[in-house]
Amino acid sequence: MNPTTPGPIGERHWAIAEGYIPPDSTDGGDPRLVSHEAACILNAGDKEAHVVYFKDKEPAGPYRVTVPPRRTLHLGFNDLEEPEPIPRDTPYASVIESDVPIVVQHSRLDTRQAALAVMTTVAYAGGGSG
Amino acid sequence: MNPTTPGPIGERHWAIAEGYIPPDSTDGGDPRLVSHEAACILNAGDKEAHVVYFKDKEPAGPYRVTVPPRRTLHLGFNDLEEPEPIPRDTPYASVIESDVPIVVQHSRLDTRQAALAVMTTVAYAGGGSG
Amino acid sequence: MNPTTPGPIGERHWAIAEGYIPPDSTDGGDPRLVSHEAACILNAGDKEAHVVYFKDKEPAGPYRVTVPPRRTLHLGFNDLEEPEPIPRDTPYASVIESDVPIVVQHSRLDTRQAALAVMTTVAYAGGGSG
Amino acid sequence: MNPTTPGPIGERHWAIAEGYIPPDSTDGGDPRLVSHEAACILNAGDKEAHVVYFKDKEPAGPYRVTVPPRRTLHLGFNDLEEPEPIPRDTPYASVIESDVPIVVQHSRLDTRQAALAVMTTVAYAGGGSG
Repeated sequence: MNPTTPGPIGERHWAIAEGYIPPDSTDGGDPRLVSHEAACILNAGDKEAHVVYFKDKEPAGPYRVTVPPRRTLHLGFNDLEEPEPIPRDTPYASVIESDVPIVVQHSRLDTRQAALAVMTTVAYAGGGSG
Repeated sequence: MNPTTPGPIGERHWAIAEGYIPPDSTDGGDPRLVSHEAACILNAGDKEAHVVYFKDKEPAGPYRVTVPPRRTLHLGFNDLEEPEPIPRDTPYASVIESDVPIVVQHSRLDTRQAALAVMTTVAYAGGGSG
Repeated sequence: MNPTTPGPIGERHWAIAEGYIPPDSTDGGDPRLVSHEAACILNAGDKEAHVVYFKDKEPAGPYRVTVPPRRTLHLGFNDLEEPEPIPRDTPYASVIESDVPIVVQHSRLDTRQAALAVMTTVAYAGGGSG
Repeated sequence: MNPTTPGPIGERHWAIAEGYIPPDSTDGGDPRLVSHEAACILNAGDKEAHVVYFKDKEPAGPYRVTVPPRRTLHLGFNDLEEPEPIPRDTPYASVIESDVPIVVQHSRLDTRQAALAVMTTVAYAGGGSG
């Protein structure tokens, strides 16, 4: 086995049923420790991935991002501004669609109480009609 | 790629093998920081989802909830009352069935000791006979 | 949709690649807060599940447990004694096989430092030759 | 059901879209509590697994490891040196390829703030062209 570069891996339709940006932080002034949530997207193929992100509330989104070939994008939900920010302290869910195969992993850092907490899961991959 | 709304995504049968509502909390009076567990359900399709939730103990359930089209429901296991509450400090497991495809993610917030902890995973999706 | 009981769900072959029982705890005398690891097994079908659990080290196991129909078993790896206990502070991995479909979720509670941490994931389900 | 050893389980192509080695630790001098990240690899089959690990940045990798039959390897991303170390405090992603089926689970220990946090998920398994 002697590969030189990985090939494409993943699927085009993903969903994250859990979503919540904690309203508070005990970050001590370190912006990396602000409570936040992200979809980590890997495009392991040779073509640019054009990714569309929908929040579940009817008028929100789509948000659009591009992931270059053989690169990852840690899409911070806290940082989305267009077409509208994601409200804090409010449950939501996400559907993510891409024109090429990608892999999506969902993570949250929660520092509402002193001493951080983290969680992660690979998102659900499956059929869609996008 | 120019989608306007996401289509249905997910499956109709889900299971969560891990279940435990911690009996204590260090919530400092903030109800959002009470130790709790939830199944986050996303219905990304156009039809209402009628969801049935079973606990593993024989006489418990079914619990019934409805998730509107293109909406998420963060189903707090702490809050279930009918047909009976879920006991604290007791291992359990869950089967979730829907008449349309949904996505289910399992999360827990544990504040038994000062400084919260969180965990999450996409639930197991697979065949069922419901 | 009007089900009365869920049917079988899951698969017969599972694997947990991550395994580690932390050697220390800050449990304050509460046995539930001792650092531990578990495989949570759900048998949602009508037949008893006879489950065999292998640790990766050659001579260890199999461990055998039975999960009654429509019940969950939170199999604490800390508590296994026969054929041998699982050593603390030592990476390991697990293969779990059952004669009927089950669902397996892996969880760890870590209280080495004050303020607990938890993590969970649905185990890997896939083909096997057991 | 009376197995004596488990058979092969898993897939040959895996991806971890989330990657981040926290830059700080509150480890109190215990090397096991340094913030770190790992891919836990299980080779449950009878043949040696030759595993290739790619980071997403173009010139990085491949890293090569071997997992003996019926053994696990907890591959610490902190410890990789050849062809180059993985920078701290920098998002990355991983593709893992093997010549025989393996199971990959992704975990992180984060001790940037006092009181550790842990997270885990089974990696994404799927088609590749390696």
